Amino acid sequence: MQEVKDSFHKHVWDLQDLICSELRKVDPEIQMTEDLWERKDFAGNEGGGGRTRAFEGPLIENAGVNTSLVYGEVSPEFASKLKGKSTKMWATGISLIIHPRNPRVPTVHANFRMIENGGQVWFGGGADLTPYYPLEEDFIHFHNVWKKACSPYGVYNDFKKTCDNYFVNKHRDGEMRGIGGIFYDHYFSGDLEKDSKFGVDLSNYFIESYFPIVEKRMKEEWTPEDEEFQLHRRGRYVEFNLLHDRGTSFGLKTNGRTDSILISLPKRCKFTYKYQPGVGSPHEKMMEYYRPKDWV
Amino acid sequence: MQEVKDSFHKHVWDLQDLICSELRKVDPEIQMTEDLWERKDFAGNEGGGGRTRAFEGPLIENAGVNTSLVYGEVSPEFASKLKGKSTKMWATGISLIIHPRNPRVPTVHANFRMIENGGQVWFGGGADLTPYYPLEEDFIHFHNVWKKACSPYGVYNDFKKTCDNYFVNKHRDGEMRGIGGIFYDHYFSGDLEKDSKFGVDLSNYFIESYFPIVEKRMKEEWTPEDEEFQLHRRGRYVEFNLLHDRGTSFGLKTNGRTDSILISLPKRCKFTYKYQPGVGSPHEKMMEYYRPKDWV
Repeated sequence: MQEVKDSFHKHVWDLQDLICSELRKVDPEIQMTEDLWERKDFAGNEGGGGRTRAFEGPLIENAGVNTSLVYGEVSPEFASKLKGKSTKMWATGISLIIHPRNPRVPTVHANFRMIENGGQVWFGGGADLTPYYPLEEDFIHFHNVWKKACSPYGVYNDFKKTCDNYFVNKHRDGEMRGIGGIFYDHYFSGDLEKDSKFGVDLSNYFIESYFPIVEKRMKEEWTPEDEEFQLHRRGRYVEFNLLHDRGTSFGLKTNGRTDSILISLPKRCKFTYKYQPGVGSPHEKMMEYYRPKDWV
Repeated sequence: MQEVKDSFHKHVWDLQDLICSELRKVDPEIQMTEDLWERKDFAGNEGGGGRTRAFEGPLIENAGVNTSLVYGEVSPEFASKLKGKSTKMWATGISLIIHPRNPRVPTVHANFRMIENGGQVWFGGGADLTPYYPLEEDFIHFHNVWKKACSPYGVYNDFKKTCDNYFVNKHRDGEMRGIGGIFYDHYFSGDLEKDSKFGVDLSNYFIESYFPIVEKRMKEEWTPEDEEFQLHRRGRYVEFNLLHDRGTSFGLKTNGRTDSILISLPKRCKFTYKYQPGVGSPHEKMMEYYRPKDWV
């Protein structure tokens, strides 16, 4: 067990480095702030911590690529909600969000985690895309990569559907945050080494799923209307993250590091009463895609 | 009873008109969108509705001044949480939020409501100010008016404290949304007519508490740093409303009209990782005031 935990932990730290260098590659003037933070567990003992990396740049408006390793005691109340029901927990993972400046380049979110509690181990995570312009070939690319990643494990349809059902603004008539991707939780097949390899394998597809889209679109011109629509949809992103996202609420309620958790919010956004995209505009077209759809 | 309900209902509708004309007076080019909406109750019968008025103007960036009258059946689950425990409810109220463009002019929020359930009646509401620049005399003016309004009823200290405790971003180390005001709920003294007059009296102080500040400050020049700080604090406003505000969560969970509820959000805002105001700046000074303080 310990060997698998160490190796998954090392993997997410390495992946963080890889993704950060991709960000620097696409936006050489990007500025990074790194914060190493420590946490105490429920009993007041050493409980791990994390490495938060916050980015701001001319092309990548803001991004967060974070890792954490947390362990030790949790509250009995919290333990009762965990799969293993134990007050002893161990978890590690990577969580990231990238908000590009150009409205033709989609926002992306991903996370990959391993959790151990009460002798049980499980994996969770996923990646989902939030575009602001109807460039269908990009959406197909993203979904294709995740289908390729999941197919050896036979989980694509399941993970895709879970994602479509999760990133939904229920208070906005079931409108999705973006165009989905994959999402999974409590994954355990019974074979720890195989499952750990599965988590690692999936996470290794992230760069291929997203950065080719950035490189292809980042130099495209955009209009003020494109930006208005992007800022409006970023507002919807904020609504989802603060009203519905379980990870955000879990983090804030368990006294997580607020700045690291809310790094997911876009730098700028707008809230407009009864916002409507222009009739016949690409943005009106884009609205149709914030609903579950088979992309591949 | 019916007479008191009718008269409170008429009062909030009239007050809505008065406040809307104040908005037009300070910002003559302001544009208003009025939406009359109807709701069905839990049993599918006619259940009242509301009058939403959304504003956008050169000086008042966005504002919402809403009234509603809701009645009929509520779900048994919801009824069990009500003071009167009955599935029959009646409620009316006014709710408003004003986000001026100029960072020297504070944001304000207020609401005044009357509720009847299971033979019990109670009143609730309040008003609170969210300034972005340390103009202490304005804060004193606001609190002074509310002290004057509450004093005949002997409730000022209580309502002021409740407000300080309510509008708090718990996930931000107890930082308040603004500088407080008054807040109260489940108010009932045993004398219905007196209480109704109390609710009406308080609400009539709103214009005096806020608009003199707008008139005094709206033509002041501001700096880009003032605006950055304002946008940052508006981000904190969004965090409070979506993460903590009971009214927002109640409205969205009971299938309220989403656009009317989320009219409270500012048109533009910013989220910045580990935002810090400039050392020695007025904004650093302002940060000290987002904590409970005796202003009068």
